[in-house]
Amino acid sequence: MHLGALILAAGEGTRMRSKLPKVLHSLAGKPLLSHVIETSRTINPDEISVIYGHGGEAVKNHLAADDLNWIEQKERLGTGHAVIQALPHLQQVDQVLILYGDVPLISGPTLVSLLSCLHSSDLALLTVDLQDPTGYGRIVRDRDDRITRIVEQKDASARELEISEINTGIMAVNRDKLETWLSRVDNNNAQNEYYLTDIIALAVADGVNIQAVHPHNEEEVMGVNDRKQLAYLERFYHRNRADELMQSGVTLADPGRIDIRGELKTGQDVFIDCNVITEGSVSLADGVSIGPNVVLKNCAIGVDTEILANSVLEDCEVGSGCRIGPFARLRPETQLADQVHVGNFVEIKKSQVADGSKINHLSYIGDSEVGSKVNIGAGTITCNYDGANKFRTVIGDRAFIGSDTQLIAPVTVGEGATIGAGSTITKDTPAEQLTLSRAKQFSIDNWVRPVKKAKD
Amino acid sequence: MHLGALILAAGEGTRMRSKLPKVLHSLAGKPLLSHVIETSRTINPDEISVIYGHGGEAVKNHLAADDLNWIEQKERLGTGHAVIQALPHLQQVDQVLILYGDVPLISGPTLVSLLSCLHSSDLALLTVDLQDPTGYGRIVRDRDDRITRIVEQKDASARELEISEINTGIMAVNRDKLETWLSRVDNNNAQNEYYLTDIIALAVADGVNIQAVHPHNEEEVMGVNDRKQLAYLERFYHRNRADELMQSGVTLADPGRIDIRGELKTGQDVFIDCNVITEGSVSLADGVSIGPNVVLKNCAIGVDTEILANSVLEDCEVGSGCRIGPFARLRPETQLADQVHVGNFVEIKKSQVADGSKINHLSYIGDSEVGSKVNIGAGTITCNYDGANKFRTVIGDRAFIGSDTQLIAPVTVGEGATIGAGSTITKDTPAEQLTLSRAKQFSIDNWVRPVKKAKD
Amino acid sequence: MHLGALILAAGEGTRMRSKLPKVLHSLAGKPLLSHVIETSRTINPDEISVIYGHGGEAVKNHLAADDLNWIEQKERLGTGHAVIQALPHLQQVDQVLILYGDVPLISGPTLVSLLSCLHSSDLALLTVDLQDPTGYGRIVRDRDDRITRIVEQKDASARELEISEINTGIMAVNRDKLETWLSRVDNNNAQNEYYLTDIIALAVADGVNIQAVHPHNEEEVMGVNDRKQLAYLERFYHRNRADELMQSGVTLADPGRIDIRGELKTGQDVFIDCNVITEGSVSLADGVSIGPNVVLKNCAIGVDTEILANSVLEDCEVGSGCRIGPFARLRPETQLADQVHVGNFVEIKKSQVADGSKINHLSYIGDSEVGSKVNIGAGTITCNYDGANKFRTVIGDRAFIGSDTQLIAPVTVGEGATIGAGSTITKDTPAEQLTLSRAKQFSIDNWVRPVKKAKD
Repeated sequence: MHLGALILAAGEGTRMRSKLPKVLHSLAGKPLLSHVIETSRTINPDEISVIYGHGGEAVKNHLAADDLNWIEQKERLGTGHAVIQALPHLQQVDQVLILYGDVPLISGPTLVSLLSCLHSSDLALLTVDLQDPTGYGRIVRDRDDRITRIVEQKDASARELEISEINTGIMAVNRDKLETWLSRVDNNNAQNEYYLTDIIALAVADGVNIQAVHPHNEEEVMGVNDRKQLAYLERFYHRNRADELMQSGVTLADPGRIDIRGELKTGQDVFIDCNVITEGSVSLADGVSIGPNVVLKNCAIGVDTEILANSVLEDCEVGSGCRIGPFARLRPETQLADQVHVGNFVEIKKSQVADGSKINHLSYIGDSEVGSKVNIGAGTITCNYDGANKFRTVIGDRAFIGSDTQLIAPVTVGEGATIGAGSTITKDTPAEQLTLSRAKQFSIDNWVRPVKKAKD
Repeated sequence: MHLGALILAAGEGTRMRSKLPKVLHSLAGKPLLSHVIETSRTINPDEISVIYGHGGEAVKNHLAADDLNWIEQKERLGTGHAVIQALPHLQQVDQVLILYGDVPLISGPTLVSLLSCLHSSDLALLTVDLQDPTGYGRIVRDRDDRITRIVEQKDASARELEISEINTGIMAVNRDKLETWLSRVDNNNAQNEYYLTDIIALAVADGVNIQAVHPHNEEEVMGVNDRKQLAYLERFYHRNRADELMQSGVTLADPGRIDIRGELKTGQDVFIDCNVITEGSVSLADGVSIGPNVVLKNCAIGVDTEILANSVLEDCEVGSGCRIGPFARLRPETQLADQVHVGNFVEIKKSQVADGSKINHLSYIGDSEVGSKVNIGAGTITCNYDGANKFRTVIGDRAFIGSDTQLIAPVTVGEGATIGAGSTITKDTPAEQLTLSRAKQFSIDNWVRPVKKAKD
Repeated sequence: MHLGALILAAGEGTRMRSKLPKVLHSLAGKPLLSHVIETSRTINPDEISVIYGHGGEAVKNHLAADDLNWIEQKERLGTGHAVIQALPHLQQVDQVLILYGDVPLISGPTLVSLLSCLHSSDLALLTVDLQDPTGYGRIVRDRDDRITRIVEQKDASARELEISEINTGIMAVNRDKLETWLSRVDNNNAQNEYYLTDIIALAVADGVNIQAVHPHNEEEVMGVNDRKQLAYLERFYHRNRADELMQSGVTLADPGRIDIRGELKTGQDVFIDCNVITEGSVSLADGVSIGPNVVLKNCAIGVDTEILANSVLEDCEVGSGCRIGPFARLRPETQLADQVHVGNFVEIKKSQVADGSKINHLSYIGDSEVGSKVNIGAGTITCNYDGANKFRTVIGDRAFIGSDTQLIAPVTVGEGATIGAGSTITKDTPAEQLTLSRAKQFSIDNWVRPVKKAKD
């Protein structure tokens, strides 16, 4: 049997009030559609097809992936019509799983349950019981609890309106039946559209014992039609991630104030304070502590390292036993070895810093290679850019860079060298020696302080 | 017909435990009383009168506005007495709308509904159904659903206690009737006070068919008596603002973590991350992205500009396509043109920066005019203050300021000039030339590093 | 009568998935066990005993306090066995209060109520009514409402399962009875453990009229078994602290976004913005305003001082009328007098700053004594460390330190001295004079700007 996941992603999403196609809006840092695609992949379908329409090429370009089969929906004549158009492109598919690009949190296990129903039926629906089913198509069942039809809100009797089980639109169908039923769906309705859900009545008419599966939670089947719904699912998502983290042994200062936008791997006894945001792929080794308001993007933090308040790290690696921040900024291509200290108002970019070095205050280190046990004084700046090119600074082990030093790259500071405070270093400095540049200090004894001038 | 809004704002607010009069406490950055006044203005009354008492002059001074009619309540003998005292000051008023300075979230549409009742009645009450009406005066109605009286908690029968509709105190009354009824109100009660609500019984006795209107939500009629109630309404307010933003097409990372203290205008596809605070008048053009923990006060941000994490902007204008932060501080009277980059640990004050210039690291730019395509190196400081006066720095287009330069104002850097790193620039620098000040670098080869001294 | 508090703290806490013993996990910055110990102290017991087991020495070392009686539980044979082992160590104790190291939020008043029952009974239980009592031992009472036994979930009849009153395990017992009953407890159960709760049946059999007391809220008796429960109590704790602050007259921008980890004293009309964290002992005098995202640890802030956004203060004292931040970092042993301004990207460590001085931009002040009315320019750095030793900088009253000055300690700047911008000050500077070090500014008129090099 060949399984095809078919994702309907052609909706306009006018209620988003956006230039961006709805399915490209981000949830937890990733387009809605990507969530659905990635969840589809977890069940190993033989192919994944995406029906796109509105914003067409944008969607396709944004998500370019080799394993996707893109199908353009040229006319927008309803969900049934969309699937009809797609079928010729699903050549080897025997079973079709129908998903929606704007229903992002559907889970793999739910899809597995749904598909397993196809062993005993030609059609399996994902349905859900809602406290307030208003507006949704209700699942009508007979006395034997068999699904007999779906009744839309506007057509429902008072009694039917009380039914809390509703149709989510997500379904698994045997392909030949799907094809047959869809060929019989018409567009005799107010919108003149072909509705996919109409196949349910046709299946019942054919005597099919339609199976229904429930998701683990309601949010799995919630669609995103406006930014309130988007925000609701965003918070639900992070709260769930927070729960998973806590179950795995991470202490969170506030599970309601953490955002995990991407993949977060955590070791034992990790602590994460309030208002932390992670983006992309982040790993925190055993004993790592992340302070409040820290932003971590694509970085790996070593054992027992502390990232203090208000630090921002991006595309970098930090060793073990380091102490970073508060107010530290680590930019891309920064690698810190172990026991490195980076203090307040320090920016490091595209640099390697070896074991035990300290850059504690108000410095900019860029395009540099810093040895081990180096002490970089406050206000040190690597002048790595001449306005056209970038050059590297190399600082040997055990060097001591006095405060407010400018290192004009390309330049090398020898091992064990000392640089006097306030120096402008334009040439390589010898190892173990003191190097400096300094103008003589003098005083003017008849100095008169400026006085406040009258305004004109 | 002349409409007068009469705002009772004389309460002491002892439960606030504050030196500040209660009605001056801030909700969303604005005094409680100001909320009521501004809402009153939306319905265009012919006059707005404020009855003040406790903290008297403070209230008056704090809110000074030409269109307010201030009435001092010298004796505090109850709400009825307050209105009696006010009436002589409402000379041309035919209809009186009675509001409360500590009920800040009453809405314009609710007031319009209330006033419209005066077409058919002499008295209209704002009432609300509460899940827990304990403590409030209940609205007693007869079989025809006409209001017959208000019964206070302590006087209510068991059956009356079950009534969930309560009196909010907010009402609209025809002025002549108000005057008549108030003249008949007495103070035969435990507190010896004249209660405004006593006019309801008098109106019923006069055969008036009292109308009742409900607010859109309960919070509209909630009073602030302590800081818990204040915080509750504060959060309600921001959550509502968040909802409005989302409906208008703004993506919020967390609608529960945004504070809009003032006016916020937003274009299309604006993104606002967690924990952003806006104050005063802020506008965000299309495509603007605001990072986490950013504070924006009275500023305008141009199209597609990104404000990165932990930045603080106040009284400034930022053009389009700029990238600001993280950890940037823009202070008052700063104007950035388009495509300007301001990076980490940079402070700009009272300066203009033209198109495409970059100030990326650890700098202080004050009282300056920076041309276009200028590159300002890390650690650059405009020395704008001689201890008594402030002076301006002018930097021409395409200038390249080397790192750790001090520009001692008044000073002009010519167009296309280059300043060598670490220079102290005291005189104007010629265009297109390299200017620097630099002491010679030298090394001391018999240098012995300091050793740790024994403590005494 | 001698009262002994006996705290069971030997649990392993495997669901915490931690290397740390469960009772050492922090809630609001303090180990769970410490909460219980400190609450115990509030009722003035004659002794406090802690039964430790898992992680033994770690617990003991972590909490070392002279008034604690540590008892090791060598075998883990149940709560009853633990108490049996402890009894010989409670030599002078007549009344035993049994508490749990992982039930951190039990309150003093609840313990007082519980103990007062021992006036009229030999055994008093702390019980609580739960909406969902599933899993807990139910309190079975007879028609006269007397406790007859505790029935565990698995042994309960359908009717007993409906009982919502459950046993919390916390109890007060007369010591001789406790000893007697425990000697009769056996381990004939699936786990082969001795259960403390078995004494309840024995007490009933002895005709004891067991008293029951309820805590003020459910959270008082909630145990911490995993990090979700820890986080739940963490948030409950801070929310309660927030409520107390508001009742005492503090305005909180968001009571759901404040963390009080330790003791916080507040004066009148204090304002605390969103996402503030306090740690240790913090005091905020009248009129203090704390901006968003500020972290305060062990510090005292004077009257009317403003701490602006994103500042981090630790182990310091700030006078009255100061303005600190945004982005200020005050490190340990910093004392600021009154009317001091510390601005953005400024770090101060182990320094005293006298009245009215300003350090407004991008500076590092360490090991310094700054006089009054001093103005320290942007980019000033005290070079307090020679790689081996730290030295002090002394700056006299009214000194004006030009921007980007390096003060190489030990050094003294005289009163009223002016330092020219960009100077490296290696020697003491005379009072009232201008002192500077400066290389001559020159320009190179045939300068050719670097051009972009081709990559290899």
